[in-house]
Amino acid sequence: PKIVVLPGDGIGPEIVASAIEVLKVVAPDLEYDEHKFGGASIDAYGEPFTAATQEAVQTADAVLLGSIGGAQDSHWNTLPRHLRPESGLLALRKALGVYANLRPIKVYEGMEHLSPLKPELARGVDVLVVRELLGGVYFDPERYIRDDEGFNAMRYKKHEVERIARVAFKAAQGRRNKVTSVDKANVLEVSEFWRREVVKVQQAEYSDVALNHEYVDSVAMLLVTNPSRYDVIVTENLFGDILSDLGAVLPGSLGLMPSASLGDGAGLYEPIHGSAPDIAGQGIANPTATILSAALLLRYSLNRPEAADRIDAAVLKALNENPTKDLGGTAGTQEFTQTVLNVLK
Amino acid sequence: PKIVVLPGDGIGPEIVASAIEVLKVVAPDLEYDEHKFGGASIDAYGEPFTAATQEAVQTADAVLLGSIGGAQDSHWNTLPRHLRPESGLLALRKALGVYANLRPIKVYEGMEHLSPLKPELARGVDVLVVRELLGGVYFDPERYIRDDEGFNAMRYKKHEVERIARVAFKAAQGRRNKVTSVDKANVLEVSEFWRREVVKVQQAEYSDVALNHEYVDSVAMLLVTNPSRYDVIVTENLFGDILSDLGAVLPGSLGLMPSASLGDGAGLYEPIHGSAPDIAGQGIANPTATILSAALLLRYSLNRPEAADRIDAAVLKALNENPTKDLGGTAGTQEFTQTVLNVLK
Ligand SMILES: CC(C)[C@H](C(=O)O)[C@@H](O)C(=O)O
Ligand SMILES: CC(C)[C@H](C(=O)O)[C@@H](O)C(=O)O
Repeated sequence: PKIVVLPGDGIGPEIVASAIEVLKVVAPDLEYDEHKFGGASIDAYGEPFTAATQEAVQTADAVLLGSIGGAQDSHWNTLPRHLRPESGLLALRKALGVYANLRPIKVYEGMEHLSPLKPELARGVDVLVVRELLGGVYFDPERYIRDDEGFNAMRYKKHEVERIARVAFKAAQGRRNKVTSVDKANVLEVSEFWRREVVKVQQAEYSDVALNHEYVDSVAMLLVTNPSRYDVIVTENLFGDILSDLGAVLPGSLGLMPSASLGDGAGLYEPIHGSAPDIAGQGIANPTATILSAALLLRYSLNRPEAADRIDAAVLKALNENPTKDLGGTAGTQEFTQTVLNVLK
Repeated sequence: PKIVVLPGDGIGPEIVASAIEVLKVVAPDLEYDEHKFGGASIDAYGEPFTAATQEAVQTADAVLLGSIGGAQDSHWNTLPRHLRPESGLLALRKALGVYANLRPIKVYEGMEHLSPLKPELARGVDVLVVRELLGGVYFDPERYIRDDEGFNAMRYKKHEVERIARVAFKAAQGRRNKVTSVDKANVLEVSEFWRREVVKVQQAEYSDVALNHEYVDSVAMLLVTNPSRYDVIVTENLFGDILSDLGAVLPGSLGLMPSASLGDGAGLYEPIHGSAPDIAGQGIANPTATILSAALLLRYSLNRPEAADRIDAAVLKALNENPTKDLGGTAGTQEFTQTVLNVLK
């Protein structure tokens, strides 16, 4: 199987290197094809996602991405919108057709003290956020900025809601069988539509899964005051961006949180944290999220659950044995990776 | 001065009654004109915001609102959108022209233990969220729901951004002189426009106030992991809905959080919590948020800061002396109100 590797910017190259070292132990037959992406690609070729890279990802079995973008005052941020690092990421998602972004959020036993929440609230948090990734206000072609106004359109079509709803219901069947669909149906027509279509999918195909509906503002509160009430959360692109980031801080470090973006072809795997330009190159970035993203890659794109389980278990052990700096430990990127490799061998 | 009182639904009538008892002590000259609103108005007159109520609020000096809406399965939620309680609230905001929603979020000294956050994170939180309240996706006339898709439009015009930016900068001058403007300018043109206009207002009129820009997903994280970094947050309607509710849980009870909605005419004052139909009529609702909203009314609409300060101080004292059930105490609505009145006298 061919894995296209996009290290990206900032700490991206360091953490992706760690993940590949780990993959080489549990899946020695994988082949890697590395390409510049994001800011690194802009600096080399003048655009964040070149035609060559696009061709490569479209013949890949899976794509492993590090992180993209620079500091707020980076020279990349003064480029026209379509040439910025973020536009490359959006174009990559679109090229792969990955409409479902899965973010498992889990507070591991014994690690509750890392959470910003009181331990009694953090304990037992185990949520899967399923974010629609190719629709809504992110991609709608009706958009402009003029002298006197800015405009974007929030639109969802039937098949877009149906396919993401199916992903959520199917995931819930392998978990605690409960889906919370998040919208703002008390104000927005697009949300009323979303809710109606989600209900239809549940009634026709997943009547065994419990479904409830909550408003996005309320979920933002309850994720903090009562996070263990959620099993699977499904929501549209923009709400998903906000809520999955909010949820991601509950375990205490963004450095722990992987993600998988799935469609009908190759999947895209990336840590949910950013490129952390402030610590890039210092060898102290926590590679956990990227290593766990590699495990998701084995699970979802290559159908190798045993190899994925091995990585998950090794990472958990390594986190307890020799945690990284962001977790209050002392291990640097290399040292932590070595601990994971030692556990695996 | 004439205060139009809209008790609304659920616990609304109980908490509004408390606030008026308190107002009568510190501002005995106010006159009150009470109207049904929201679900109560739907049940009586078939619509949430009647022409008579509209006339009343438009000649008021200020409007004091309780809370509106019913439980998720309430009969009100099956009505056509324009006849639901929430539509009444949106129409009320529009009728009053209140474009600026101010939500002060403060963790009081000695009350850090109530927060869902660890005490060391909760300590010192003191944020003012300034939410644009009459624009964006909430009010744009381009909206529909059809068989095959739902649609809303996110639009901001120059004058809408300018006027809310001014409110934020002015508020910051009376605080710690720092404004964080929240957008999603890495993806949305409407956010790029927002950011550009906020910068222009700062450069032309408030160059003494520090301004920075953050993405909405990042702010959702940082409000939880590092809330004391914020002074004034200014943002558009939908982001403001989500972030101000998220911020509102930090002090530990929604029952504490007041709000003021301001425009060029009469202001609208309401607690930020909902109508809590599950505890309505039991006499246990915490009236603090509504009493503090009444204090904001004195401060902003009637220009009586001393009377407002008296209420604030009395409430803080009462919360320490005899807290309500939601705060781990035993006081019911009446008993708590009596404690506030005793402190005042
Ligand atoms: C970088 C940005 C375009 C992206 C998004 O908003 O989707 C990021 O925040 C994410 O969640 O992956
Ligand atoms: C009830 C609803 C329409 C309202 C809003 O979204 O503005 C509420 O959530 C609020 O924040 O006051």
